[in-house]
Amino acid sequence: MKMQILGAYSTKFGELWNVSPRTLAKEAMENALKASGLKATQIDALFVGNMLSGILGNQANLGSLLVEELGVQIPAFKIEGACASGGLALHNAINSLKAGQYKTVLVLGIEKMTDHSQDEITTALMAAGSDEERMAGATFPGVYALMAQAYMQKYKATEEDLAAVSVKNHYHGTLNSKAQFQFLVTVGDVMRSSKIADPLKLLDCSPISDGAAAVVITSGNVAKKVKKPIHIIASEVGTDTLSLHDRKSFTSLAAVIDASTKAYKKAGIKPSDIDVAEIHDCFSISEAIATEDLGFSKKGEGARDIAKGKRTLFKGDIICNPSGGLKSCGHPVGATGIKQIVEITEQLRGTAQKRQVKRARIGLTHNVGGSGAIAVIHILRS
Amino acid sequence: MKMQILGAYSTKFGELWNVSPRTLAKEAMENALKASGLKATQIDALFVGNMLSGILGNQANLGSLLVEELGVQIPAFKIEGACASGGLALHNAINSLKAGQYKTVLVLGIEKMTDHSQDEITTALMAAGSDEERMAGATFPGVYALMAQAYMQKYKATEEDLAAVSVKNHYHGTLNSKAQFQFLVTVGDVMRSSKIADPLKLLDCSPISDGAAAVVITSGNVAKKVKKPIHIIASEVGTDTLSLHDRKSFTSLAAVIDASTKAYKKAGIKPSDIDVAEIHDCFSISEAIATEDLGFSKKGEGARDIAKGKRTLFKGDIICNPSGGLKSCGHPVGATGIKQIVEITEQLRGTAQKRQVKRARIGLTHNVGGSGAIAVIHILRS
Repeated sequence: MKMQILGAYSTKFGELWNVSPRTLAKEAMENALKASGLKATQIDALFVGNMLSGILGNQANLGSLLVEELGVQIPAFKIEGACASGGLALHNAINSLKAGQYKTVLVLGIEKMTDHSQDEITTALMAAGSDEERMAGATFPGVYALMAQAYMQKYKATEEDLAAVSVKNHYHGTLNSKAQFQFLVTVGDVMRSSKIADPLKLLDCSPISDGAAAVVITSGNVAKKVKKPIHIIASEVGTDTLSLHDRKSFTSLAAVIDASTKAYKKAGIKPSDIDVAEIHDCFSISEAIATEDLGFSKKGEGARDIAKGKRTLFKGDIICNPSGGLKSCGHPVGATGIKQIVEITEQLRGTAQKRQVKRARIGLTHNVGGSGAIAVIHILRS
Repeated sequence: MKMQILGAYSTKFGELWNVSPRTLAKEAMENALKASGLKATQIDALFVGNMLSGILGNQANLGSLLVEELGVQIPAFKIEGACASGGLALHNAINSLKAGQYKTVLVLGIEKMTDHSQDEITTALMAAGSDEERMAGATFPGVYALMAQAYMQKYKATEEDLAAVSVKNHYHGTLNSKAQFQFLVTVGDVMRSSKIADPLKLLDCSPISDGAAAVVITSGNVAKKVKKPIHIIASEVGTDTLSLHDRKSFTSLAAVIDASTKAYKKAGIKPSDIDVAEIHDCFSISEAIATEDLGFSKKGEGARDIAKGKRTLFKGDIICNPSGGLKSCGHPVGATGIKQIVEITEQLRGTAQKRQVKRARIGLTHNVGGSGAIAVIHILRS
C-alpha cells in the first residue's frame, strides 16, 4: 500500500512565550493542511504526539482539545512515549491507514516547555526515566553522561570528538531560519561551556524548547494533487529496559538497533543507501552512538567520523541533522519526531534551501524516548 | 480479517493500597497471557491505556516501563484520551493488527488513583475538561450535573429515575467478586446520600478506584488453541467539543451517536441485536443518556426504561452493565475501557457465572472521555 506524505510544516522552534500551546498547534496543523492542498473536512483522524501536557498543563484529553482547532469532529488520539512521542504518533497513524480504518490523517507533534521553571522542567523530564534512576538522583543529562563516560573509555574517544557533534549541528542551524539557535560554536566554545554532568557540558546538551510540527499522510488518491509526494517505506519501533543498569551495553542502544534493522529490511535497503538522516541528538554522545547503531559508522568510530566531517552538509557522505538537530534546531520533546519527518520531507523534495543535501533520495529519522527505552525509525523515499 | 480476543483478565477494582501500579499492571498482563495460552515471547507489541501516570506519577514513558514486566523487548505505546484511554488503546491495537504490522498484541488498561489526596484527584480529573470549564470552576460532577438538569427539565425525568441506574448497577455489583462495591442500594439510599452537584448525589457518582485489565488480541492462527475466541466486529471513535457550552445538545452526546452509528454499520447490525452492553456510567445521568444515544431506548425514555427494569440482569431486554458498571465495579479511569471488554468477553463466552446474561451472543462497549469529547464503541460477537 502506498503511504505518502502530502503536506509538512514546522513552526519556528525556540522560547515562544507569546503563543499558547493551542495557537502553536493550530499554526502547525493549518499550514500542513495548506501545504497538502486539502481541507480539514478531508482529514479522517488526528494523531498527536506529546509528552508533557499532563504533567505541565494538567491536560489529559489533548486529542479532543486540539481537534477543536480544526473545526471538524474526527477521531483524535494522543500517543505518548517520552521524547519518542512524535515518532510513535506517526507509527500509529501509519498503522491506521494500512488498516484501512482511515485514509488521510493529520499527525501533530507539540510541546510547550518554556512557560515553566527550570526545576519544573527538570522534574518533568525525569518522567522519561525509571524509578530507580530517579531515586538515585540521576537526571536526564546524568544518565547520558554515564554513557559518554563508558563510550570514551571503551573507544578512546575524546571530549573534543563529542564536541564536534555540537559544532556540526550549530553550523547546520545557521542555515535553518526555524532553528532555535542560529549561531556557530567552536570546539573551544563547547569545551569552555559550563559542566552539566561530566563529561557533558552545556553545549553538549539540547535546549528546552517550544514548537510544533505536523504532516498530512494518506493512503488514498488525493496525492495526485501534490507535486511531489514523499513515500514512507518503513516505520518500526524497538524497546529496551528503562534503566541503564539493566542493559548489556552502555555504548549502544538495543532499541535503535532493533528498530533500524527491521526498518532497513522492510525498506529493502542498507545503511549506506541513506542520503540524509535526522538524528535524536538530545546530547552530543547520542548522535555519536546513533550513527554507529544505525550502521553509518563502525563501532567506536561514530564520534571521530563526525569530527572528520563525514556527517556534515556539503562535505559528508551520510548527512546527519541538516536541520541543526535537537541541539541547534531545538527539542520541544513531543514535537521532535514530527519535525524530523518535516525536515526529511523538505530534503527529499529539494525544498530545503540553504541546507539542501544534494541528490537526496532516501532519508531516515531516528527518534528516541528516555535514555533509549524506546526508539522509532522511519525511512522516507522521494 | 479475523480479529479475535484470546485471553482477558481484570484485577479486583477498589482501593488497592497494598500494590504498586507496576504490580497491578503485571497481574493483569500475566493473567491475560495465561488465559490466552500464549507466552510473552509470542506477543508483538503492548498498547497501554492510561490517563494519569504523568500527572499523578510523573511517569511519561509508561509503555516502555510496563513492557519490562513482560520480560521481552517489544514495541510499546501509551494511548491517552481521558477516561476513554482504554478503549482508544484497543482501537489503535486493532488498527496495528489490521495493518499487518503486528499479529498478536497485548492491550492493557491501568490506573492507580487512591494513593493520592482527594484534592489531587479532583484537580487531576479536571485534566479531561476544557480550559473554560476549569476557569469557571466546573468540576467533572458539575459538568454532568448540568446535563442532568437539562435532561430532567426536557424529558420530565425525576431524580428517582436517575437513582434507578445506581440501584441496578449496585445490584449487578453484588454478583461480581471483582467489584469495588458489592452491596445493594435503594432509591431511598441514593436520594438521601449527600449532594455533590445538584441533582447528582454521592450515590449517583462512580468512585475513585485502582485497577487494571488486559486482553490479548490476534489476527493470526494462534486462536485455534483457545476454546472460544471472541470476535471484535467493530471499533469506532467519535469526538465532540471539549466544552459543554460549544455543543448543540446537553441531553445527547454527539461523539457517542457518531461512533455507534459507524460501529453498527461496520458490524452490520442494529441496536436491538445487542444482548449485553457495558456502559460508561461515570454518573447515573451518563447511562440514561447513553442508552438513548446507542438506540436502546427512545429519546427521553432512557432513565425511565432503566427504572422499569429494562436494562437489568434476569428481567431486562438489553442488559446494561452486568459488571456493576463504573458506579459499582469501580472506575480506574484508564482501565475502564479494557475492563468493559473483559466483561463482554466473559459474557459472550458464558463464563460470567452469577452475573451471566442468558444467550448473550452480541455485546457492545461504550467508553467515553471527558464529558463526551471522545467516545469509543466496540462490538464483540461470540
